Amino acid sequence: MGEELGKACVAVDAMGSDRGVGEIVAGICEVLKSDEGDLKIIAVGDEAAVASEFKSRGFFKDERVQILHASQVIEMREKPVQAMRAKRDSSMMRAIDLAKEGKVSAVLSCGNTGALMAAGTIKLRTMPGVERPALGSIIPADRRNFVLIDVGANPDPKPTNMLDNAILGANYARIAMGIERPKIGLLSNGTEDCKGNILTQNAHQLLKNSSDVLNYAGLIEGFQVFEGDCDVIVCDGFSGNVLLKTLEGIFKMLKGMLKEELMRNPLRMAGAFIAKGAFTGVKNRIPVEKYSGAPLLGLNNLVVKGHGSSDSRQVAGALNIAIQCVRRDLNRKILADVSKIKESSRQAKQNAENQ
Amino acid sequence: MGEELGKACVAVDAMGSDRGVGEIVAGICEVLKSDEGDLKIIAVGDEAAVASEFKSRGFFKDERVQILHASQVIEMREKPVQAMRAKRDSSMMRAIDLAKEGKVSAVLSCGNTGALMAAGTIKLRTMPGVERPALGSIIPADRRNFVLIDVGANPDPKPTNMLDNAILGANYARIAMGIERPKIGLLSNGTEDCKGNILTQNAHQLLKNSSDVLNYAGLIEGFQVFEGDCDVIVCDGFSGNVLLKTLEGIFKMLKGMLKEELMRNPLRMAGAFIAKGAFTGVKNRIPVEKYSGAPLLGLNNLVVKGHGSSDSRQVAGALNIAIQCVRRDLNRKILADVSKIKESSRQAKQNAENQ
Repeated sequence: MGEELGKACVAVDAMGSDRGVGEIVAGICEVLKSDEGDLKIIAVGDEAAVASEFKSRGFFKDERVQILHASQVIEMREKPVQAMRAKRDSSMMRAIDLAKEGKVSAVLSCGNTGALMAAGTIKLRTMPGVERPALGSIIPADRRNFVLIDVGANPDPKPTNMLDNAILGANYARIAMGIERPKIGLLSNGTEDCKGNILTQNAHQLLKNSSDVLNYAGLIEGFQVFEGDCDVIVCDGFSGNVLLKTLEGIFKMLKGMLKEELMRNPLRMAGAFIAKGAFTGVKNRIPVEKYSGAPLLGLNNLVVKGHGSSDSRQVAGALNIAIQCVRRDLNRKILADVSKIKESSRQAKQNAENQ
Repeated sequence: MGEELGKACVAVDAMGSDRGVGEIVAGICEVLKSDEGDLKIIAVGDEAAVASEFKSRGFFKDERVQILHASQVIEMREKPVQAMRAKRDSSMMRAIDLAKEGKVSAVLSCGNTGALMAAGTIKLRTMPGVERPALGSIIPADRRNFVLIDVGANPDPKPTNMLDNAILGANYARIAMGIERPKIGLLSNGTEDCKGNILTQNAHQLLKNSSDVLNYAGLIEGFQVFEGDCDVIVCDGFSGNVLLKTLEGIFKMLKGMLKEELMRNPLRMAGAFIAKGAFTGVKNRIPVEKYSGAPLLGLNNLVVKGHGSSDSRQVAGALNIAIQCVRRDLNRKILADVSKIKESSRQAKQNAENQ
């Protein structure tokens, strides 16, 4: 878009993924091929394995790439806090350490989500004014993609955490989807003002009072999620996680059923072949792999979680999200909004006292 | 199944629906055509309008049908408790009154959900041992249909309410899906024992302690919802409502997109025509209309909520659910389980004290 591409330095956990180091490195190389800005990648993991993957792809001598050796790998099934303590020399912990030391601005990992969230939160800490981080996920939808936040970092938020989720999500939407003033909805079990559980009702009040900073449109219910009403949908980390995972599940079920039915006999197979452009068309309208990374927002550095089973395209998608957020200065923008809201609530309080 | 069909007497709110009285009466007539048991329907609403609809379908002189006049209709947008008070002579309130007076065993309405839940709860009251009612919905899935409960009656449940939801849902699954010992899962944001929000963790403990009555399989996460793991999925009324409505939304979106893409040009249209059996095949594997009624469980009488936009097939589906639950004595079975769980928790307490 003509803007100058700023510097981005990202540490990538090259090991922790269901598909192994090859797929991660392939994703990094895909980004290296197309990126035209000032980029540096530190790939963290078993040096020999990582180097060999870069070599086989012709990127070993690329000066944008550096490899940092780490002797351990946190497995998917390990308990987060235990793993974090027992595996200090794991690729994930070393990558986060790089962020803590200020050597990179962002971390990408497709590994153990719990460990990544725990280590990110403990080692990098939340930014001033934000109490808890939130996991934001861009959901591709036909009419309008949207950020769902929180999808799992905080299953028992307070209303103020929900307000923070809105700030975090709005700024993420601003940067990752290019929307200057994202429209925010609060997910509820109905749209009347009296609807919602207690948490949602209290968060609704806080959000209504923040309209000078946030473009808050009010409560939305499940029917509206895919109607293209909002750019950001705020929810607690429990509902958001259940929703996101169930959507993946139903999508997989429907896709599988359609495929089975289309392959049931030669006639149907012929019809499917003739109409195959339609199926590609549907797929292109909801580009799931493009938005496979979910940033853990609200920390002093950016941590992006890639799907555990990401293929190279998905790794590239998640890495591009990390790079964009760094180049467009996501965290500075979040900080500005947080202090604006604090200031306006301080003023409102003062006005109330003076009256 | 060779069992003798018991008596069932159901009051149907013939007015409160998006599609009007005709569609409701058409649904009733569909059931009358096929039902072979001892059935009585009291259709409540504007006498002239209801009678005329029965006449035009040749069921006016059917002795299983009775019409009860009601002069008012509660509209979809009215506030529940206000509507309940202001419209005592509405078709919905009169239908519930019939249940309260013991003249029918079940009520079916496709009208205002909030008003139906409020009036059902206030007028019919919860059964002994059940503190709050829950809305159960059968979700058709490819591998195994399942009951999702609660889908909206109680957005802020206590852990004991979640235990009740499991009892209510299991007995509903027993009757509506014919499963003797339904497998129950508790919806959570992960399957490890430490996962869940505080509510879910506490409910998980209660459910684990009730294994002599309930076939509890533990926590399940979103990915598993459509994997066919469980017959009953227990959740709070907030998450359940959000989930159910969002599923409807994504289903509608995907269907619409596929249709658009298939109709985009003559070639694709031809392919779609040749393969059309596949699309019917998918539709038949998830028969949404068959399970369109959601009972409000845990009250002294059964209240079934039909979808506001139900067509006649969906009305018939919801009415059949009501009839089945009455004939197979759902509420007596729930009561038995509730007292078994109370008894075993009393004994456990006593044992603990004696030790």
